Amino acid sequence: MEIYFLGTAGGTPSPDRSLPCTVLRMGGRTLLLDCGEGSQRQLMISPVSLMSVDVILLSHLHGDHIFGIPGMLQTMNLFSRSHPLSIMGPRGTIYVMGLLMETVGNDLGYSVNVEELCHGDEREVLGLRLEAVETEHNVPSLGYVVREPPRPGKFHPERAKELGIPAGPLYSRLQKGEAIEIEGRVIKPGDVMGPLRRGRSLSYSGDTLPSDSFAHASRGVDLMIHEATFGDDMAEHAAISFHSTARQAAEVAKKADAATLIMIHISQRVVSDLDLEDEARAVLGNVPAVVARDFDSFRLLAKD
Amino acid sequence: MEIYFLGTAGGTPSPDRSLPCTVLRMGGRTLLLDCGEGSQRQLMISPVSLMSVDVILLSHLHGDHIFGIPGMLQTMNLFSRSHPLSIMGPRGTIYVMGLLMETVGNDLGYSVNVEELCHGDEREVLGLRLEAVETEHNVPSLGYVVREPPRPGKFHPERAKELGIPAGPLYSRLQKGEAIEIEGRVIKPGDVMGPLRRGRSLSYSGDTLPSDSFAHASRGVDLMIHEATFGDDMAEHAAISFHSTARQAAEVAKKADAATLIMIHISQRVVSDLDLEDEARAVLGNVPAVVARDFDSFRLLAKD
Repeated sequence: MEIYFLGTAGGTPSPDRSLPCTVLRMGGRTLLLDCGEGSQRQLMISPVSLMSVDVILLSHLHGDHIFGIPGMLQTMNLFSRSHPLSIMGPRGTIYVMGLLMETVGNDLGYSVNVEELCHGDEREVLGLRLEAVETEHNVPSLGYVVREPPRPGKFHPERAKELGIPAGPLYSRLQKGEAIEIEGRVIKPGDVMGPLRRGRSLSYSGDTLPSDSFAHASRGVDLMIHEATFGDDMAEHAAISFHSTARQAAEVAKKADAATLIMIHISQRVVSDLDLEDEARAVLGNVPAVVARDFDSFRLLAKD
Repeated sequence: MEIYFLGTAGGTPSPDRSLPCTVLRMGGRTLLLDCGEGSQRQLMISPVSLMSVDVILLSHLHGDHIFGIPGMLQTMNLFSRSHPLSIMGPRGTIYVMGLLMETVGNDLGYSVNVEELCHGDEREVLGLRLEAVETEHNVPSLGYVVREPPRPGKFHPERAKELGIPAGPLYSRLQKGEAIEIEGRVIKPGDVMGPLRRGRSLSYSGDTLPSDSFAHASRGVDLMIHEATFGDDMAEHAAISFHSTARQAAEVAKKADAATLIMIHISQRVVSDLDLEDEARAVLGNVPAVVARDFDSFRLLAKD
C-alpha cells in the first residue's frame, strides 16, 4: 500500500507545489484523492501510471480540487483507455461532472461512473473498505477512511506438525480458513493459526475545519492525511475560510490516535513548512508529523 | 515585445512539456495565446506576472488548449484581481466559457468579457493590431496575426539644425507628427524625419493543417509560431488529425516569407526535436527554424 503526494498546495499552485492530488496504490491499482489542475502531468512525472487510475474520490467541488479531471479524461481517451473509471464525491458531484464532461466534448471510449456519497456510505475500492465521512467546509464536503480487511492470523507450522498434519495442500486449506479432517479428527484453522491480523488503514480529511466526525471515523488509523492550510499565525483566517491549522490537524490526529500525521494543502502564504511541523509536533509529541512536498511517497507495510 | 513559450506540448502533456500556452508581453501588459491545463503554474514559474494577463486568445476549443482557464480565473480572484479580463476565440467560445465559468462557481471580483471572432476580424490589443484568420482544424479554429502600428520615422537633428530649428520643444512637436512654424516658414515632420518605420509582427497558427489563408495573412511577419505536431514519419497521421508536420509548417513560413519560424505543439510521439528542425530547415534554408521548449523566450527588437 503506497501513497504518493503529487499536489500539496492549497487554493492556488506555487512554483514548488501543484494543486491537490494524493495517490493510493494497492495491488497495481490506483485511486486518486482529489484531482487538481496539473494532476495528469504530475502522474506522468511520478512512477505511477496514469492508465492505472481506476477511482477518483473528490473531497468537495472547489476548482482547485477538480480542474485536473477534464484533461485527465481526455488524455486517457487519447491513450485508448477502454476500462471504466469511477468518480465519487459529495452532493453536487454529478452536476459538476456533467459540466466538465461537456467541455471535454468528444465521445470517450470508456465508461465513466459518477456517484454521490453521503456520510457513512461504505464502498469497496481496490479491495479495501472505503467509508465517506461528512466534514466541515463551506460547501458539501467529505473525508475518506480506507481500511484493509483483517488478514488471516499467522500460521504456526510447529502446531500443525504436533497435530500430525502432513505439510502440503492441507496447510493451504487451513490457511484459507477451512476446517479439515484427518484420521477422524476435525482440525480448525484456529488450532494452527494466530488471531486475525488488523489490516492497514488511512484517512484523508479533504478541506475542513477540525472535524469530530472525521476524528471519530479515523480511530486508530496508521496514517492520517490532513489539510493544514495555515499556521498558528493565520488561525483566524483558517476559521473564516473553513480550513485547519497545523495545530488543529494534529489535535484531530491525536483524538483519532493516528500513528502518523502527514499534512497537505499548504497555502502559498505559509512561509516555512518547519513552523507547521513544529506546531503539530507540540501537540503530538513522539507521533510522527510531517508536511508533504510534491512527489513525496509513503509506504504502509503490512504488520505481522 | 517578448514571447514566452510556457507550454509546448500537443494533445497531452509530457514530463518535459506542459500544455499549450504562449505569452506575448508588450509594454508591461500580457496576452496569452491558448491556455492549456497547468498554464497558471507555468506563469508562476516564469518571469511573467499572472496578474498582468489582460487578454486570452483561444485558437480553438479542444480541451488541451482551454483547461487552464477555470483555475486561472479562480486564482486571479483569490489574488484580488479587479481589472477586467478579455477572452476571445472562434465560434463556440461563449458557450464553452459559460460551462467553465459555472464550474468556477463563485462570484468573481472582476469582469470577464468573452467574444467570438470571425475570419478577418480586427481588434486592438496591447496597443497592437490583431487579426483573426480562419485555419483548418476539425473544429472551428482561428490563427492570429499581431502587428505593431508603423512607428514614426527616424528624427535627423542635423537636418533640423540646417533649417534653423532650436533644440527643445519644437523637436518634440515635429517627432509627434505636428507641423511647426518658425520665422514665417512652415516646417513639416517629413522635412526632418525619415519614412515611417514598419512595426514588429508575429503570427500564431493554433492547431491546423497547412493553411493558405494563414500564410497569406502572415505575409512578412518577423516571427511565425506554427504548430508542428509530428514529423515526416507521421505525415499521414497529421493529415487525418488536422495537424501539420514540421516540414509543412516550414512551407507555410516560406510562403509567408516569415523571418523566423518557431514550432510548438509537439506530440509526445515525436522522438527528437532535432528531426523536426532538420525537416523544417530543409525547406527554409537560412531562415531560422527551431522547436520551442517550455520556458524558452524570444525578444522581437524594434528595427531602425
